[in-house]
Amino acid sequence: MTDGVKVAVVGATGYAGYELARILLRHPNLDEPTFYLRDSNSTVHCLTELFPQLRGWGEAPCKPFSVEAIRKSGAQAAFLATPHEASLDLVPDLLDAGLRVVDLSGAFRFANPATFSQWYKLPAPSSAALAEAVYGLPELYADRLASARLVANPGCYPTSVILGLRPLVEAGWIDAGRGVVCDCKSGASGAGKEPKRETHFVEVNGNFRAYGLFTHRHTPEVTEHTGLAPEDFMFTTHLLPVERGILSTLYVWLEQARSRDEIESAFRAFYAGRPMVRISRAGSLPELQHVARTNFCDIGFALDESGKRLVIVSCLDNLGKGAAGQAVQNFNCMMGWAEETGLI
Amino acid sequence: MTDGVKVAVVGATGYAGYELARILLRHPNLDEPTFYLRDSNSTVHCLTELFPQLRGWGEAPCKPFSVEAIRKSGAQAAFLATPHEASLDLVPDLLDAGLRVVDLSGAFRFANPATFSQWYKLPAPSSAALAEAVYGLPELYADRLASARLVANPGCYPTSVILGLRPLVEAGWIDAGRGVVCDCKSGASGAGKEPKRETHFVEVNGNFRAYGLFTHRHTPEVTEHTGLAPEDFMFTTHLLPVERGILSTLYVWLEQARSRDEIESAFRAFYAGRPMVRISRAGSLPELQHVARTNFCDIGFALDESGKRLVIVSCLDNLGKGAAGQAVQNFNCMMGWAEETGLI
Amino acid sequence: MTDGVKVAVVGATGYAGYELARILLRHPNLDEPTFYLRDSNSTVHCLTELFPQLRGWGEAPCKPFSVEAIRKSGAQAAFLATPHEASLDLVPDLLDAGLRVVDLSGAFRFANPATFSQWYKLPAPSSAALAEAVYGLPELYADRLASARLVANPGCYPTSVILGLRPLVEAGWIDAGRGVVCDCKSGASGAGKEPKRETHFVEVNGNFRAYGLFTHRHTPEVTEHTGLAPEDFMFTTHLLPVERGILSTLYVWLEQARSRDEIESAFRAFYAGRPMVRISRAGSLPELQHVARTNFCDIGFALDESGKRLVIVSCLDNLGKGAAGQAVQNFNCMMGWAEETGLI
Amino acid sequence: MTDGVKVAVVGATGYAGYELARILLRHPNLDEPTFYLRDSNSTVHCLTELFPQLRGWGEAPCKPFSVEAIRKSGAQAAFLATPHEASLDLVPDLLDAGLRVVDLSGAFRFANPATFSQWYKLPAPSSAALAEAVYGLPELYADRLASARLVANPGCYPTSVILGLRPLVEAGWIDAGRGVVCDCKSGASGAGKEPKRETHFVEVNGNFRAYGLFTHRHTPEVTEHTGLAPEDFMFTTHLLPVERGILSTLYVWLEQARSRDEIESAFRAFYAGRPMVRISRAGSLPELQHVARTNFCDIGFALDESGKRLVIVSCLDNLGKGAAGQAVQNFNCMMGWAEETGLI
Repeated sequence: MTDGVKVAVVGATGYAGYELARILLRHPNLDEPTFYLRDSNSTVHCLTELFPQLRGWGEAPCKPFSVEAIRKSGAQAAFLATPHEASLDLVPDLLDAGLRVVDLSGAFRFANPATFSQWYKLPAPSSAALAEAVYGLPELYADRLASARLVANPGCYPTSVILGLRPLVEAGWIDAGRGVVCDCKSGASGAGKEPKRETHFVEVNGNFRAYGLFTHRHTPEVTEHTGLAPEDFMFTTHLLPVERGILSTLYVWLEQARSRDEIESAFRAFYAGRPMVRISRAGSLPELQHVARTNFCDIGFALDESGKRLVIVSCLDNLGKGAAGQAVQNFNCMMGWAEETGLI
Repeated sequence: MTDGVKVAVVGATGYAGYELARILLRHPNLDEPTFYLRDSNSTVHCLTELFPQLRGWGEAPCKPFSVEAIRKSGAQAAFLATPHEASLDLVPDLLDAGLRVVDLSGAFRFANPATFSQWYKLPAPSSAALAEAVYGLPELYADRLASARLVANPGCYPTSVILGLRPLVEAGWIDAGRGVVCDCKSGASGAGKEPKRETHFVEVNGNFRAYGLFTHRHTPEVTEHTGLAPEDFMFTTHLLPVERGILSTLYVWLEQARSRDEIESAFRAFYAGRPMVRISRAGSLPELQHVARTNFCDIGFALDESGKRLVIVSCLDNLGKGAAGQAVQNFNCMMGWAEETGLI
Repeated sequence: MTDGVKVAVVGATGYAGYELARILLRHPNLDEPTFYLRDSNSTVHCLTELFPQLRGWGEAPCKPFSVEAIRKSGAQAAFLATPHEASLDLVPDLLDAGLRVVDLSGAFRFANPATFSQWYKLPAPSSAALAEAVYGLPELYADRLASARLVANPGCYPTSVILGLRPLVEAGWIDAGRGVVCDCKSGASGAGKEPKRETHFVEVNGNFRAYGLFTHRHTPEVTEHTGLAPEDFMFTTHLLPVERGILSTLYVWLEQARSRDEIESAFRAFYAGRPMVRISRAGSLPELQHVARTNFCDIGFALDESGKRLVIVSCLDNLGKGAAGQAVQNFNCMMGWAEETGLI
Repeated sequence: MTDGVKVAVVGATGYAGYELARILLRHPNLDEPTFYLRDSNSTVHCLTELFPQLRGWGEAPCKPFSVEAIRKSGAQAAFLATPHEASLDLVPDLLDAGLRVVDLSGAFRFANPATFSQWYKLPAPSSAALAEAVYGLPELYADRLASARLVANPGCYPTSVILGLRPLVEAGWIDAGRGVVCDCKSGASGAGKEPKRETHFVEVNGNFRAYGLFTHRHTPEVTEHTGLAPEDFMFTTHLLPVERGILSTLYVWLEQARSRDEIESAFRAFYAGRPMVRISRAGSLPELQHVARTNFCDIGFALDESGKRLVIVSCLDNLGKGAAGQAVQNFNCMMGWAEETGLI
C-alpha cells in the first residue's frame, strides 16, 4: 500500500463514514487514508476506537480537522461524510486549497440553489462551488466526472429510483401523464447513528411504517434527474426492519404495449459496460440481500399481459451504492481508474 | 366456559388455525372448541402437542375429522382453516349437515366461479353453496352476515386494500382513470407453516423482495370489491422480514382537490360504529407494530399540498384481521353478538 | 366493567407500564384503571396519546400524580412502574395513605437495605416500608401475599433463574461447591424505552453481546432467593436481537446421579397447582417464542448420560412474567383471586 | 487473475460453499476457481445461477464432478464443502490423485476414527488418509499445515471454544475440577440451506432456544483440543435469530486469583503474530456484529473482584472463521502465504 494516492476523509464518525473507511482501507490504488475529526476536543487517535470492528484492517489514524492539515498531508482529494450544513462551509474551502472533493451531503446536489434551501431549510450553497459540481451518478454522468473538482454524491433513495426509471424515460416509453409511483423502502442505517425513538430497536424490529410522505428531501433529486413533473409523481419512503438496503418498487404505465424482451433489452443496452448495475433476467426479480454490503444496483421488472402496466424493482445498499460505495466509484472515475476498483 | 356455544375447527395445524385456536380458546361466549384433523393417521389428541405454546390455555382436544362427528357433537358452526381444494369439498357437506360455516380458504370468495378456477387452477366451487356465500368483510357486509349460512373469509391482502380504498371509491372521489397503485407488504407467516426455500430464515432475515407481480391470487378479490378496472390498477406484494402483519400503501389521484379534513371525515364517517377499524389522526400514520397480534385494521393517509395526490396506508395482522380474527368477527356477526367479542 | 376494583398506575410511560396498561385494561375484576403521570407539565390526557396501539381498548385516562388524588379516587391499590429512586419516595407515602402497593422497581426487593444501596448506588429504602415488603414471586411466597400491603415485584432475570433453580436447591440435589452457572439472554425491551446507542436498531439487529458481567444489579436477588453463595455462582446477561423474552440456561452438577424422571418429577411436584409455570416434557425444551407476550414461565432440562451434569432452561417474557404480568399475578394473590385472572 | 494458483471446489451449493466462492473469487493469489457439482444431472453451468448475488464477481464455472476432471484441470488443491459421508469417499481419491485437500466436513477431524463413528453414526474414515490429516486451526497448528496434504477444517463452535480456552489451559490456570461451562449461541446459517421446520423464518425470528444438549457432534472436538475431561465439561448450543455468527460464553474457575492484566497478557502473548485473532481491551467485550462476514475471532473476558471467577467471550462468523474463511486461512498456510491473504 505504498506509493498509492493519498486521500482525506472528513466526518467518519457515522455509518456512511464507517463504510467509507471500510472500503478505502482496502482500496488497491490508495495509501491508507487519514481521518479528520471536526470535534476539536476529540481524544480519538485511531478510527478503531470508534469502530472496534475495524481492528486488523489498518491503522486508520485520526487527526483534528483543518484545511491546512489536509493540504499539507499531500492528499489529492477529500471525502466529506459530514452534515449538510458542515459541507456548505467546508467544500469551498477545500476547493480553494486545491483539493478535489466528493461530498456525501445534500448541499451541492441541486442545479438551483433555491431547491436546496427550500427542502433542507438551510442557506444556499456557494454558487461558485455549485457551478462546478457534478451530480455523482457515474452510470449517467461518467464523462463529466473525469475532470470534476467537486462531486455531489447522490442520495440513497434517488440513486435507486433514477437508475430504475431513467432508461425508459429517455426512451420516451412512459405515459407520464398517468403518473409514476415510487414506493421505496429502506433499512434503518439510512436514518443515521444518532439514537432516536424512531430507530430504537424495539420500535423498528417487527415493525414497518411509512414516513416523510410528500416531504422527503430526496424528492427533488428524483424529479430533477428523471425529468418527471412533480404533480405526476408520487414518492414515498418506508422503514424496513433491516440494517441495510433500499428496495424501490416503481410503477409506470407505458404509452404503448411492449414485450418483456423489449423492456429487458432497453435496460441492458442502457447499462452496457456498467459493472455496478446488474439487470435481472426476465422472470426473476432483485432482492435486498443480494445487494446488501455491495456497491451493486440490481434492477428487474414485471410486465403484465397487456404489455402496458410495468413494475420496476431497483435495489441497492444504502451505505454502499447509496452512499460510500458510490463515493468511491465516483472517485475512481475522477482518477480515470476502472469504476469498480476496490468495490468488488 | 360452560353453556357456551359449541363450534368445530377443521384444519388447525397451520398458522391461521393456530391463531383461530388461540382466539376461540378464550372467547367468552363459546364452549371450548373441538379440533378436527383431516389426517386420519394422526396420533395427536390435543392441539398442545402441535403448539406447545397453547399449554395452560385449555384442553383443545383433537379428533379425526368426519362431518358426522361434527354434527353429533352439537356444534352449531364449523371454521375451516383448510386448503382451498379441501374446502371445495367440505363446505357443501357441512352445509348439508346443517352447520353454519366460516371458510378461511379462497374457494367461495368470488361471485363468479370461473374467477376462482382461473386464478387458483382448481375446479369451480359448488354453485349451490356459492349462491349463499357472503364475502366476510363485516365493515361492508354486516347486514348480510346475520343470516348467512356460509361466510367466505377474505384474503389478508384484500382486507387491507379494500378497507383502505372503499370509502373514497364509494364517495366517487378517485380519478380511477389515472390508475390506482397498491403496494402491499406482508410478514412471513402469510406464506404458511410449510418450510420452503423462500421462507427459510436465512433467506428472509435482512432481506426484502417483491413476489407474485401481476399473478397474485388476491388480485380479483380487490377489483371485485372496489369496482376498480383491472387495467387501471396495479397490485404488488412483498415479503417483509417480520412474522406478522400487512401494510398496504395505496396511491390514488383525486378527481378534485380535497382538504385533509375532508379525507379524514370521509374515513371516520364510513367506519363510524365499527370498532375494529381505527382511523389515524391527520398527521400520523399507522404502523405494523400497532396492529400485530390484534384484530384491528388501522388506516391513515397523507395528502400533498395540491390536495390531489393521496397516499393511504392501511395495515392489519395477516393472521388476525387478515384471517382468524376476521373469521371470529364474522362469526360474532352471524350470532348477533358484538362484533369485537373475544377480539380485544 | 362497572363495580370492579379500582386501581391506580403510576409511571405508565415505559414499556413495563405499557404492558401493565394492556393487561389491566382487560382484567375482568377491575374497573378501568387511572394512570398518573409524574411529569406535572404533561399535557397527555389519555394513555393512547403515548401508545396509539391501545386505541380501542378503553379510555385509559391520565392525570397528574398526587398521593391525595389517588387516595380520593377510591383506588385500593397502586402499581408503580417508576424508576428505583422514585419508588423509594412514593412507596412510603402511598402506604401511609392506606393504599396497597405493587412496586415494579428494585427499591424494596432486598431484605437488607444495604444490599440495595450497594448495587443501585442510591439511598437505602425506608426501613418501615421494607419491613413489610414481600418479594413478589407467587410460586414461592403466595401465602405471604394475601395480606401483604407492599409487594416488591422481582426483576426479570431473577424470576427466570430462581424459578429454574429453586426446586433442586430445596431438594438439596445440587453440588453447589462445584459452582452454578447462569447464562441469561434477554430481548431489548428489557433495556427500556429511552433511546441509547446500545439499543439503537442497527446496533442490536444481527448482533448479540454479553453485558454487565459480575456487575448486574439482579445478581443479589438471585443469591438471596436461591441461597447460593456468591463465590460459587456466575451470572451473566446477554442482549438478544428480539423485542421480548428472557431465556436462562442454568448449569449445575448434581451431588449424585439422578434419572430424567426424578428431575422432571421434582419440578412437577414443586410447581403443582401453579398455573403460570409450565414444565416441558422430558426430551423437549422451552423456547422464547412460546412465552413471549404471556405470563408463563416455561422450564425444561437436559441431563447427561451419567445423570450428574444437568442443564436447566427457564424462559419467560421480560415484560410479562418478568414485570407487568407478574405484578398483576401478585395483585391477584393479594386480592384472593385465582392467580391467573386476566393473564391467560 | 492469470498465472495464479488453480484450485477446485467441490460442493459449493450450500452456505459454506457460497462463502468459499465469495472469498476465492477475489483471492489475489488464485486463478478463478472451478466449481464441481456432485449431482450429475445438474444443468447449472455457472455458480451465479444458484447464487445470483455473485453476478459481477467472476465467471465461477460449474462442471460435473470427477476426480479425473479435477486432476486434469491443473488444480493443486481441492476444497470440499461436502457432507460428511461424501468426504469420507472423496478425500482418499483426491489424495491419491495427487491433490492437496481442505475438507470442511467432520470426517477427518478426530485422531481416533471411532470418535467420528460414534458421534456421526457413519463409517470410520480411511485410516491412511486420517493418519496424515492435520486439524486445521492455524493459530495452534500452523507449523504442521505447511506440509500437510490433508487438512480437516474444524467445526464452527469448536473454533470459538478452543481459541477461547486454550491459552489458559496451556498456562495451567484453570481449576478444571470445578468444571468448565461453554454456553454457545449460533446464527441460523450454521443449520444449513435445506429448509426445515426448525429454520423456518417464523420459527426462528423473535425466538431463541437451546438444542443438541449433551449430544452435539462438536463436543468431542472441543475436549480433544482443550484436553478437558468430558465429565468436567458442559457444552451447549443455542439458535440465535441472526444469519451469521457464533458467540461462546466460557465459564472457568481459576486455580488461584489473577489480575485482569495477567489474563489479558496471557491472551495477547498466546496470539502474538496471529492476525485473525483480536483480543479485546480489558473492560470491553467482543460483539457478534464485529466479526460477522469476517475471518476474525474476537476474544474478551471479564474477571470478578476476587480474581477467581472468569468469563471468556469468544466470537466469530460461523461461515467465515468457523468454516470457509478458516479453510482459506489453512490453505494460505499450506502454500506458505501470509495467513490473512484474501481474508481482510
